[in-house]
Amino acid sequence: MIQQYPSRLLENAVGEFAKLPGIGRKTALRLVLHLLRQDADDAVRLADAVRTLCLEVKHCHVCHNVSDTDTCPLCADPRRDTTIICVVENIQDVMAIENTQQYRGSYHVLGGMISPMDGIGPADIEIDSLVARVAQGGITEVILALSPTMEGDTTNFYIHRKLMPYNVTVSVIARGIAVGDELEYADEVTLGRSIINRTLFDGK
Amino acid sequence: MIQQYPSRLLENAVGEFAKLPGIGRKTALRLVLHLLRQDADDAVRLADAVRTLCLEVKHCHVCHNVSDTDTCPLCADPRRDTTIICVVENIQDVMAIENTQQYRGSYHVLGGMISPMDGIGPADIEIDSLVARVAQGGITEVILALSPTMEGDTTNFYIHRKLMPYNVTVSVIARGIAVGDELEYADEVTLGRSIINRTLFDGK
Repeated sequence: MIQQYPSRLLENAVGEFAKLPGIGRKTALRLVLHLLRQDADDAVRLADAVRTLCLEVKHCHVCHNVSDTDTCPLCADPRRDTTIICVVENIQDVMAIENTQQYRGSYHVLGGMISPMDGIGPADIEIDSLVARVAQGGITEVILALSPTMEGDTTNFYIHRKLMPYNVTVSVIARGIAVGDELEYADEVTLGRSIINRTLFDGK
Repeated sequence: MIQQYPSRLLENAVGEFAKLPGIGRKTALRLVLHLLRQDADDAVRLADAVRTLCLEVKHCHVCHNVSDTDTCPLCADPRRDTTIICVVENIQDVMAIENTQQYRGSYHVLGGMISPMDGIGPADIEIDSLVARVAQGGITEVILALSPTMEGDTTNFYIHRKLMPYNVTVSVIARGIAVGDELEYADEVTLGRSIINRTLFDGK
Protein backbone atom coordinates (compact mmCIF):
# COMPACT_ATOMS: atom_id res chain seq x y z
CA MET A 1 0.00 0.00 0.00
CA ILE A 2 1.24 3.47 -0.86
CA GLN A 3 1.93 5.49 2.26
CA GLN A 4 0.30 8.89 2.42
CA TYR A 5 2.70 11.54 3.65
CA PRO A 6 1.10 14.60 5.23
CA SER A 7 3.71 16.84 3.62
CA ARG A 8 5.20 17.01 0.10
CA LEU A 9 8.48 18.38 1.50
CA LEU A 10 8.71 15.38 3.80
CA GLU A 11 7.83 12.94 1.02
CA ASN A 12 10.47 14.53 -1.21
CA ALA A 13 13.23 14.26 1.43
CA VAL A 14 12.23 10.65 2.25
CA GLY A 15 12.34 9.81 -1.46
CA GLU A 16 15.86 11.23 -1.82
CA PHE A 17 17.17 9.34 1.23
CA ALA A 18 15.51 6.12 0.05
CA LYS A 19 17.63 6.29 -3.13
CA LEU A 20 20.76 5.65 -1.04
CA PRO A 21 21.97 2.04 -0.97
CA GLY A 22 20.64 -0.08 1.88
CA ILE A 23 18.09 2.55 2.94
CA GLY A 24 14.41 1.73 2.46
CA ARG A 25 11.49 4.12 2.85
CA LYS A 26 10.95 3.25 6.54
CA THR A 27 14.57 3.97 7.45
CA ALA A 28 14.53 7.08 5.24
CA LEU A 29 11.47 8.37 7.12
CA ARG A 30 13.18 7.68 10.46
CA LEU A 31 16.30 9.60 9.35
CA VAL A 32 14.30 12.53 7.99
CA LEU A 33 12.18 12.78 11.15
CA HIS A 34 15.39 12.72 13.18
CA LEU A 35 16.64 15.68 11.15
CA LEU A 36 13.32 17.47 11.74
CA ARG A 37 13.66 17.04 15.49
CA GLN A 38 17.15 18.60 15.40
CA ASP A 39 17.85 22.31 15.02
CA ALA A 40 17.40 23.41 11.43
CA ASP A 41 21.12 24.38 11.55
CA ASP A 42 22.19 20.75 11.91
CA ALA A 43 20.14 19.67 8.91
CA VAL A 44 21.44 22.59 6.85
CA ARG A 45 25.01 21.55 7.77
CA LEU A 46 24.30 18.05 6.39
CA ALA A 47 22.76 19.53 3.24
CA ASP A 48 25.70 21.90 2.73
CA ALA A 49 28.29 19.15 3.34
CA VAL A 50 26.69 16.97 0.65
CA ARG A 51 26.29 19.83 -1.82
CA THR A 52 29.85 21.14 -1.35
CA LEU A 53 31.35 17.66 -1.54
CA CYS A 54 29.64 16.73 -4.78
CA LEU A 55 30.25 20.06 -6.49
CA GLU A 56 33.84 20.69 -5.34
CA VAL A 57 35.56 17.37 -4.72
CA LYS A 58 38.26 16.33 -7.21
CA HIS A 59 40.10 13.17 -8.12
CA CYS A 60 43.88 13.10 -7.78
CA HIS A 61 45.38 13.28 -11.29
CA VAL A 62 48.06 10.76 -10.29
CA CYS A 63 46.30 8.00 -8.34
CA HIS A 64 42.62 8.93 -9.01
CA ASN A 65 41.77 8.86 -5.32
CA VAL A 66 39.16 11.32 -3.99
CA SER A 67 40.92 14.57 -3.07
CA ASP A 68 40.32 18.26 -2.35
CA THR A 69 43.30 19.21 -4.50
CA ASP A 70 44.62 18.20 -7.93
CA THR A 71 47.25 16.01 -6.25
CA CYS A 72 46.06 14.04 -3.21
CA PRO A 73 47.93 14.26 0.14
CA LEU A 74 49.37 10.77 -0.33
CA CYS A 75 50.80 11.48 -3.80
CA ALA A 76 52.05 14.89 -2.64
CA ASP A 77 53.87 13.40 0.39
CA PRO A 78 57.65 13.38 -0.41
CA ARG A 79 58.23 10.61 2.19
CA ARG A 80 56.20 8.06 0.17
CA ASP A 81 58.01 5.62 -2.11
CA THR A 82 56.79 6.48 -5.62
CA THR A 83 58.53 3.50 -7.27
CA ILE A 84 55.86 1.10 -5.95
CA ILE A 85 52.19 1.31 -6.92
CA CYS A 86 49.49 -0.53 -4.97
CA VAL A 87 46.41 -1.06 -7.18
CA VAL A 88 43.10 -1.01 -5.25
CA GLU A 89 39.44 -0.94 -6.16
CA ASN A 90 38.32 2.10 -4.20
CA ILE A 91 39.09 4.68 -1.55
CA GLN A 92 37.90 2.43 1.31
CA ASP A 93 40.67 0.00 0.34
CA VAL A 94 43.28 2.81 0.43
CA MET A 95 42.09 3.70 3.94
CA ALA A 96 42.15 0.04 5.03
CA ILE A 97 45.74 -0.44 3.81
CA GLU A 98 46.85 2.89 5.30
CA ASN A 99 45.44 1.74 8.64
CA THR A 100 47.77 -1.28 8.63
CA GLN A 101 50.77 1.11 8.58
CA GLN A 102 52.64 -1.59 6.61
CA TYR A 103 52.83 0.22 3.27
CA ARG A 104 54.67 3.44 2.37
CA GLY A 105 54.40 3.36 -1.42
CA SER A 106 51.87 5.06 -3.70
CA TYR A 107 48.40 3.92 -4.81
CA HIS A 108 46.30 3.63 -7.92
CA VAL A 109 42.53 3.66 -7.41
CA LEU A 110 40.72 1.81 -10.22
CA GLY A 111 37.25 2.97 -9.20
CA GLY A 112 35.80 -0.49 -9.81
CA MET A 113 36.67 -3.93 -11.13
CA ILE A 114 36.11 -5.54 -14.52
CA SER A 115 32.70 -7.19 -14.36
CA PRO A 116 31.10 -8.26 -17.64
CA MET A 117 27.93 -9.20 -15.72
CA ASP A 118 27.49 -5.56 -14.67
CA GLY A 119 28.65 -4.22 -18.03
CA ILE A 120 31.91 -2.84 -16.61
CA GLY A 121 34.78 -3.30 -19.06
CA PRO A 122 38.47 -2.39 -18.80
CA ALA A 123 37.80 1.02 -20.38
CA ASP A 124 35.34 1.96 -17.60
CA ILE A 125 37.95 1.83 -14.85
CA GLU A 126 41.36 3.52 -14.46
CA ILE A 127 43.52 0.85 -16.11
CA ASP A 128 44.82 2.93 -19.04
CA SER A 129 46.06 5.60 -16.63
CA LEU A 130 47.85 2.89 -14.59
CA VAL A 131 49.58 1.59 -17.71
CA ALA A 132 50.51 5.18 -18.59
CA ARG A 133 52.06 5.66 -15.13
CA VAL A 134 54.13 2.50 -15.56
CA ALA A 135 55.07 3.44 -19.16
CA GLN A 136 56.49 6.76 -17.94
CA GLY A 137 59.16 4.76 -16.11
CA GLY A 138 60.50 4.88 -12.56
CA ILE A 139 58.11 2.16 -11.30
CA THR A 140 59.72 -1.07 -10.04
CA GLU A 141 56.73 -2.94 -8.64
CA VAL A 142 52.95 -2.99 -9.05
CA ILE A 143 51.10 -4.68 -6.17
CA LEU A 144 47.61 -5.94 -7.08
CA ALA A 145 45.49 -5.56 -3.93
CA LEU A 146 42.00 -6.38 -5.22
CA SER A 147 39.44 -8.50 -3.37
CA PRO A 148 39.83 -12.24 -4.09
CA THR A 149 36.59 -12.50 -6.08
CA MET A 150 35.83 -13.46 -9.67
CA GLU A 151 35.93 -9.76 -10.66
CA GLY A 152 39.17 -9.21 -8.76
CA ASP A 153 40.85 -12.19 -10.44
CA THR A 154 39.67 -11.05 -13.88
CA THR A 155 40.98 -7.54 -13.28
CA ASN A 156 44.30 -8.85 -11.91
CA PHE A 157 44.71 -11.01 -15.01
CA TYR A 158 43.91 -8.14 -17.38
CA ILE A 159 46.27 -5.69 -15.67
CA HIS A 160 49.04 -8.30 -15.57
CA ARG A 161 48.73 -8.81 -19.33
CA LYS A 162 48.69 -5.06 -19.99
CA LEU A 163 51.88 -4.56 -17.92
CA MET A 164 53.81 -7.45 -19.53
CA PRO A 165 55.60 -5.21 -22.09
CA TYR A 166 57.12 -3.14 -19.28
CA ASN A 167 60.04 -4.02 -17.02
CA VAL A 168 58.04 -4.07 -13.79
CA THR A 169 57.43 -6.69 -11.10
CA VAL A 170 53.72 -7.49 -10.72
CA SER A 171 52.82 -9.00 -7.33
CA VAL A 172 49.53 -9.87 -5.66
CA ILE A 173 48.63 -9.66 -1.95
CA ALA A 174 48.88 -13.00 -0.11
CA ARG A 175 45.78 -15.16 0.17
CA GLY A 176 45.54 -17.63 3.01
CA ILE A 177 44.05 -18.28 6.41
CA ALA A 178 43.14 -15.03 8.20
CA VAL A 179 44.97 -14.35 11.46
CA GLY A 180 42.84 -15.74 14.29
CA ASP A 181 40.81 -18.07 12.03
CA GLU A 182 40.50 -21.79 12.74
CA LEU A 183 42.01 -24.09 10.10
CA GLU A 184 39.11 -26.50 10.49
CA TYR A 185 36.58 -23.97 9.21
CA ALA A 186 38.60 -22.48 6.33
CA ASP A 187 37.24 -23.25 2.85
CA GLU A 188 39.34 -25.65 0.79
CA VAL A 189 40.35 -23.09 -1.89
CA THR A 190 41.79 -20.72 0.70
CA LEU A 191 43.47 -23.55 2.61
CA GLY A 192 44.90 -24.93 -0.64
CA ARG A 193 46.30 -21.52 -1.56
CA SER A 194 47.81 -21.10 1.89
CA ILE A 195 49.72 -24.38 1.45
CA ILE A 196 50.90 -23.57 -2.09
CA ASN A 197 51.99 -20.06 -1.06
CA ARG A 198 53.64 -21.15 2.21
CA THR A 199 56.47 -18.89 3.41
CA LEU A 200 59.69 -19.71 5.28
CA PHE A 201 59.14 -19.76 9.04
CA ASP A 202 61.32 -16.98 10.39
CA GLY A 203 60.42 -17.34 14.06
CA LYS A 204 58.55 -14.00 14.17
CA MET B 1 42.49 3.77 15.03
CA ILE B 2 41.50 7.10 13.50
CA GLN B 3 40.83 6.79 9.79
CA GLN B 4 42.69 9.20 7.56
CA TYR B 5 40.42 10.66 4.91
CA PRO B 6 42.17 11.91 1.78
CA SER B 7 39.75 14.84 1.57
CA ARG B 8 38.36 17.27 4.15
CA LEU B 9 35.16 17.68 2.16
CA LEU B 10 34.66 13.93 2.27
CA GLU B 11 35.45 13.73 5.98
CA ASN B 12 32.98 16.52 6.65
CA ALA B 13 30.15 14.84 4.73
CA VAL B 14 30.89 11.48 6.39
CA GLY B 15 30.81 13.17 9.80
CA GLU B 16 27.40 14.71 9.13
CA PHE B 17 25.90 11.42 7.91
CA ALA B 18 27.38 9.57 10.90
CA LYS B 19 25.33 11.83 13.22
CA LEU B 20 22.13 10.21 11.93
CA PRO B 21 20.69 7.45 14.14
CA GLY B 22 21.84 3.92 13.30
CA ILE B 23 24.51 5.13 10.85
CA GLY B 24 28.14 4.56 11.81
CA ARG B 25 31.20 5.98 10.06
CA LYS B 26 31.59 2.96 7.75
CA THR B 27 28.00 3.18 6.53
CA ALA B 28 28.29 6.97 6.28
CA LEU B 29 31.37 6.60 4.07
CA ARG B 30 29.55 4.07 1.89
CA LEU B 31 26.59 6.44 1.48
CA VAL B 32 28.79 9.44 0.71
CA LEU B 33 30.85 7.50 -1.85
CA HIS B 34 27.60 6.38 -3.45
CA LEU B 35 26.58 10.04 -3.77
CA LEU B 36 29.99 10.83 -5.29
CA ARG B 37 29.52 8.15 -7.94
CA GLN B 38 26.16 9.64 -8.94
CA ASP B 39 25.70 12.77 -11.00
CA ALA B 40 26.32 15.87 -8.90
CA ASP B 41 22.68 16.79 -9.70
CA ASP B 42 21.37 13.81 -7.71
CA ALA B 43 23.40 14.74 -4.65
CA VAL B 44 22.33 18.38 -4.92
CA ARG B 45 18.70 17.21 -5.05
CA LEU B 46 19.22 15.34 -1.76
CA ALA B 47 20.92 18.37 -0.23
CA ASP B 48 18.14 20.70 -1.38
CA ALA B 49 15.38 18.35 -0.18
CA VAL B 50 16.90 18.25 3.32
CA ARG B 51 17.52 22.00 3.43
CA THR B 52 14.05 22.95 2.16
CA LEU B 53 12.34 20.46 4.48
CA CYS B 54 14.05 21.69 7.63
CA LEU B 55 13.69 25.36 6.83
CA GLU B 56 10.12 25.35 5.46
CA VAL B 57 8.19 22.49 7.03
CA LYS B 58 5.48 23.42 9.53
CA HIS B 59 3.42 21.67 12.15
CA CYS B 60 -0.37 21.67 11.79
CA HIS B 61 -1.79 24.13 14.34
CA VAL B 62 -4.68 21.74 15.07
CA CYS B 63 -3.18 18.24 15.35
CA HIS B 64 0.58 19.14 15.43
CA ASN B 65 1.39 16.69 12.64
CA VAL B 66 4.15 17.60 10.17
CA SER B 67 2.63 19.63 7.34
CA ASP B 68 3.49 22.00 4.47
CA THR B 69 0.62 24.30 5.44
CA ASP B 70 -0.69 25.76 8.69
CA THR B 71 -3.50 23.19 8.66
CA CYS B 72 -2.52 19.67 7.58
CA PRO B 73 -4.41 17.86 4.76
CA LEU B 74 -6.13 15.55 7.27
CA CYS B 75 -7.43 18.39 9.46
CA ALA B 76 -8.45 20.39 6.36
CA ASP B 77 -10.39 17.45 4.86
CA PRO B 78 -14.15 18.19 5.32
CA ARG B 79 -14.98 14.45 5.02
CA ARG B 80 -13.15 13.62 8.27
CA ASP B 81 -15.11 13.31 11.52
CA THR B 82 -13.80 16.09 13.75
CA THR B 83 -15.76 14.94 16.80
CA ILE B 84 -13.30 12.06 17.41
CA ILE B 85 -9.61 12.60 18.19
CA CYS B 86 -7.08 9.78 17.95
CA VAL B 87 -4.03 10.52 20.13
CA VAL B 88 -0.75 9.12 18.75
CA GLU B 89 2.92 9.50 19.58
CA ASN B 90 4.28 10.52 16.19
CA ILE B 91 3.68 10.92 12.48
CA GLN B 92 4.65 7.29 11.70
CA ASP B 93 1.69 6.21 13.88
CA VAL B 94 -0.65 8.51 11.93
CA MET B 95 0.54 6.91 8.70
CA ALA B 96 0.19 3.38 10.17
CA ILE B 97 -3.42 4.05 11.25
CA GLU B 98 -4.29 5.75 7.94
CA ASN B 99 -3.01 2.66 6.14
CA THR B 100 -5.57 0.49 7.97
CA GLN B 101 -8.38 2.58 6.36
CA GLN B 102 -10.43 1.86 9.52
CA TYR B 103 -10.43 5.38 10.95
CA ARG B 104 -12.00 8.55 9.54
CA GLY B 105 -11.69 10.88 12.55
CA SER B 106 -9.01 13.45 13.36
CA TYR B 107 -5.63 13.03 15.07
CA HIS B 108 -3.53 14.61 17.76
CA VAL B 109 0.24 14.05 17.52
CA LEU B 110 1.91 14.25 20.94
CA GLY B 111 5.47 14.28 19.56
CA GLY B 112 6.63 11.89 22.29
CA MET B 113 5.48 10.11 25.43
CA ILE B 114 5.93 10.95 29.10
CA SER B 115 9.21 9.33 30.16
CA PRO B 116 10.73 10.46 33.47
CA MET B 117 13.81 8.30 32.70
CA ASP B 118 14.52 10.44 29.63
CA GLY B 119 13.51 13.67 31.36
CA ILE B 120 10.37 14.07 29.23
CA GLY B 121 7.50 15.46 31.30
CA PRO B 122 3.88 16.26 30.36
CA ALA B 123 4.85 19.84 29.46
CA ASP B 124 7.36 18.65 26.84
CA ILE B 125 4.72 17.01 24.65
CA GLU B 126 1.47 18.30 23.14
CA ILE B 127 -0.90 17.45 26.00
CA ASP B 128 -2.00 20.98 26.90
CA SER B 129 -3.04 21.60 23.29
CA LEU B 130 -5.05 18.35 23.34
CA VAL B 131 -6.86 19.44 26.50
CA ALA B 132 -7.50 22.84 24.89
CA ARG B 133 -9.04 21.14 21.82
CA VAL B 134 -11.37 19.12 24.06
CA ALA B 135 -12.17 22.17 26.22
CA GLN B 136 -13.33 24.07 23.12
CA GLY B 137 -16.16 21.54 22.86
CA GLY B 138 -17.54 19.48 19.97
CA ILE B 139 -15.40 16.43 20.81
CA THR B 140 -17.29 13.25 21.78
CA GLU B 141 -14.46 10.71 22.01
CA VAL B 142 -10.69 10.67 22.53
CA ILE B 143 -9.01 7.41 21.43
CA LEU B 144 -5.63 6.78 23.09
CA ALA B 145 -3.51 4.93 20.49
CA LEU B 146 -0.09 4.86 22.15
CA SER B 147 2.27 1.88 22.17
CA PRO B 148 1.59 -0.54 25.06
CA THR B 149 4.81 0.30 26.92
CA MET B 150 5.51 1.76 30.35
CA GLU B 151 5.72 5.24 28.78
CA GLY B 152 2.52 4.69 26.82
CA ASP B 153 0.63 3.58 29.91
CA THR B 154 1.92 6.55 31.94
CA THR B 155 0.91 8.97 29.19
CA ASN B 156 -2.53 7.34 28.81
CA PHE B 157 -3.09 7.64 32.54
CA TYR B 158 -2.03 11.31 32.64
CA ILE B 159 -4.19 12.27 29.64
CA HIS B 160 -7.18 10.39 31.09
CA ARG B 161 -6.89 12.35 34.35
CA LYS B 162 -6.53 15.65 32.49
CA LEU B 163 -9.69 14.95 30.44
CA MET B 164 -11.85 13.87 33.41
CA PRO B 165 -13.42 17.34 33.91
CA TYR B 166 -14.79 17.28 30.35
CA ASN B 167 -17.80 15.38 29.03
CA VAL B 168 -15.83 13.18 26.65
CA THR B 169 -15.46 9.40 26.24
CA VAL B 170 -11.81 8.29 26.60
CA SER B 171 -11.07 4.92 24.96
CA VAL B 172 -7.88 2.98 24.37
CA ILE B 173 -7.01 0.74 21.41
CA ALA B 174 -7.57 -2.98 22.05
CA ARG B 175 -4.68 -5.07 23.33
CA GLY B 176 -4.72 -8.77 22.68
CA ILE B 177 -3.34 -11.54 20.53
CA ALA B 178 -2.16 -10.24 17.16
CA VAL B 179 -3.95 -11.63 14.11
CA GLY B 180 -1.98 -14.66 12.90
CA ASP B 181 -0.17 -15.20 16.22
CA GLU B 182 -0.22 -18.55 18.02
CA LEU B 183 -1.92 -18.55 21.43
CA GLU B 184 0.75 -20.86 22.81
CA TYR B 185 3.51 -18.30 22.33
CA ALA B 186 1.66 -15.17 23.52
CA ASP B 187 3.00 -13.66 26.77
CA GLU B 188 0.69 -14.05 29.76
CA VAL B 189 -0.03 -10.32 30.18
CA THR B 190 -1.26 -10.00 26.59
CA LEU B 191 -3.22 -13.27 26.81
CA GLY B 192 -4.75 -12.17 30.11
CA ARG B 193 -5.83 -8.86 28.61
CA SER B 194 -7.32 -10.60 25.60
CA ILE B 195 -9.54 -12.69 27.91
CA ILE B 196 -10.60 -9.76 30.08
CA ASN B 197 -11.36 -7.62 27.01
CA ARG B 198 -13.15 -10.37 25.06
CA THR B 199 -15.77 -9.19 22.59
CA LEU B 200 -19.05 -10.75 21.45
CA PHE B 201 -18.54 -13.20 18.58
CA ASP B 202 -20.48 -11.78 15.67
CA GLY B 203 -19.59 -14.43 13.11
CA LYS B 204 -17.46 -12.07 11.01
